Amino acid sequence: MRFAFTVAYHGKNFSGFQIQHGRRTVQAELERALSIVFRQKLRIHTAGRTDAGVHAFGQVVHTEVELSRYTEKQGDLQTETFLYSVNSILDKDVVVTHMAQVPEQFHARFSCTGREYVYQVLQFPVFLPHYRDVALWVRGPLDIAAMREAASHLIGELDFAAFTPAFYRKAGEKTIRRIDKIEIIENRALLWFYFDGSGFLHNMIRIITGTLLAVGRGELTALQVKEILVNRSREAAGMTIPPTGLFFLNARYAEYETPGKKNPFREELLSLTR
Amino acid sequence: MRFAFTVAYHGKNFSGFQIQHGRRTVQAELERALSIVFRQKLRIHTAGRTDAGVHAFGQVVHTEVELSRYTEKQGDLQTETFLYSVNSILDKDVVVTHMAQVPEQFHARFSCTGREYVYQVLQFPVFLPHYRDVALWVRGPLDIAAMREAASHLIGELDFAAFTPAFYRKAGEKTIRRIDKIEIIENRALLWFYFDGSGFLHNMIRIITGTLLAVGRGELTALQVKEILVNRSREAAGMTIPPTGLFFLNARYAEYETPGKKNPFREELLSLTR
Repeated sequence: MRFAFTVAYHGKNFSGFQIQHGRRTVQAELERALSIVFRQKLRIHTAGRTDAGVHAFGQVVHTEVELSRYTEKQGDLQTETFLYSVNSILDKDVVVTHMAQVPEQFHARFSCTGREYVYQVLQFPVFLPHYRDVALWVRGPLDIAAMREAASHLIGELDFAAFTPAFYRKAGEKTIRRIDKIEIIENRALLWFYFDGSGFLHNMIRIITGTLLAVGRGELTALQVKEILVNRSREAAGMTIPPTGLFFLNARYAEYETPGKKNPFREELLSLTR
Repeated sequence: MRFAFTVAYHGKNFSGFQIQHGRRTVQAELERALSIVFRQKLRIHTAGRTDAGVHAFGQVVHTEVELSRYTEKQGDLQTETFLYSVNSILDKDVVVTHMAQVPEQFHARFSCTGREYVYQVLQFPVFLPHYRDVALWVRGPLDIAAMREAASHLIGELDFAAFTPAFYRKAGEKTIRRIDKIEIIENRALLWFYFDGSGFLHNMIRIITGTLLAVGRGELTALQVKEILVNRSREAAGMTIPPTGLFFLNARYAEYETPGKKNPFREELLSLTR
């Protein structure tokens, strides 16, 4: 039987999502806890592999389980009891928020039809301690209208080669992706760059947000951003800004019922979109 | 010359505000940084001594400075440069957000005419990692109307002996304080208990909020809270809930111009009051 889980984590003390030998990763922690409770060695698959330092609300993973190994010892699978057990084993910086049985054809990565991310920026005279691990700090004023205009050039099914490390292009990876929406949301001292799209290349959101911030500071024009996109020129695009401000917010599956996703950060953010 | 500073800190890795031998405290860190930049040994006084784990935005401190020791070496005191120096010395979990010269009669504690705190509660099926160090986690439903009714009995200049450790009463400390406002604000998964008053006894906000949560769970009635207050019975009041959810938000000085206090948390909170 196949199960999908919604997961939240604080990225600070993880070397990213994907398993790496000798490193603490979200995948390793989740596989360990799920394997203990399901009483079998499990592998998980994820909607979005996030880098070291990147956070998540609403991350989705799935795993294939021989349920009898659990039910023999524990009786019927009760969602609430099961989640309580898994979360008791997990450390405090990762939590499973929801679970559901899904069809055998469901795949957290390949069935995913939409992914949402947000990059959080703190605009304040000093870097407030509570935002240290969850935002990029920007002091000066930013031209929001110019950033929005630049962002409008990045909507659609486009070749985003300019916004991923050149290494990936050389490896022959396909660099076409679809961005449905970029919203720039002002919420007092916070500025949110919200992305909704089919999927994103490695570092793509961090490079796009870095490029939009360069536009906001007047270092690039909106038109230049369009040229950078067309010319596929990574060198001309903005810097890869730090992972600390990035949150994986949600994964959508058009053809499947997936686990619940109540997610206070996303709800607040969407309530403030124009 | 006397200076006042507005300060923000993340309480997790501090043994509270007040200096203690061999412990890392906010006071010790601030005195060290200010002494280095002002080139003299300084002591600071604060609007509110917070316990270990308690956070602050808008905390106010003052210190008495022989300004010539600074200006001899550095020239005129420029606020922005000065704050940049102090914040470069401070660790990442404490920051000075504003500063201003104040009259010689100003005292961060004794001149303070109003203090604002908020206690943050997360109401969600699981304890989300991003709230671990900044909220109390409550799973079950809470009767907000009953909590508001109970809170209404605690408004005014009253004897709050029931809401502070018995030890302090025995020591003969005066237990009369004035609470001007308690607002219970619902913001999606967050529940904020906002307090505005003359000053607060040791653990008073944590015990009052713990008592209001007991009302919310139906363990106490609003009328019983009134009786607890009148009877000065600490044993009958609720538990002292953890410091992690508590934030010092603001200190007011009716008779003085104090440093700026732009404070995004407080602004958001006040925008949601009824």
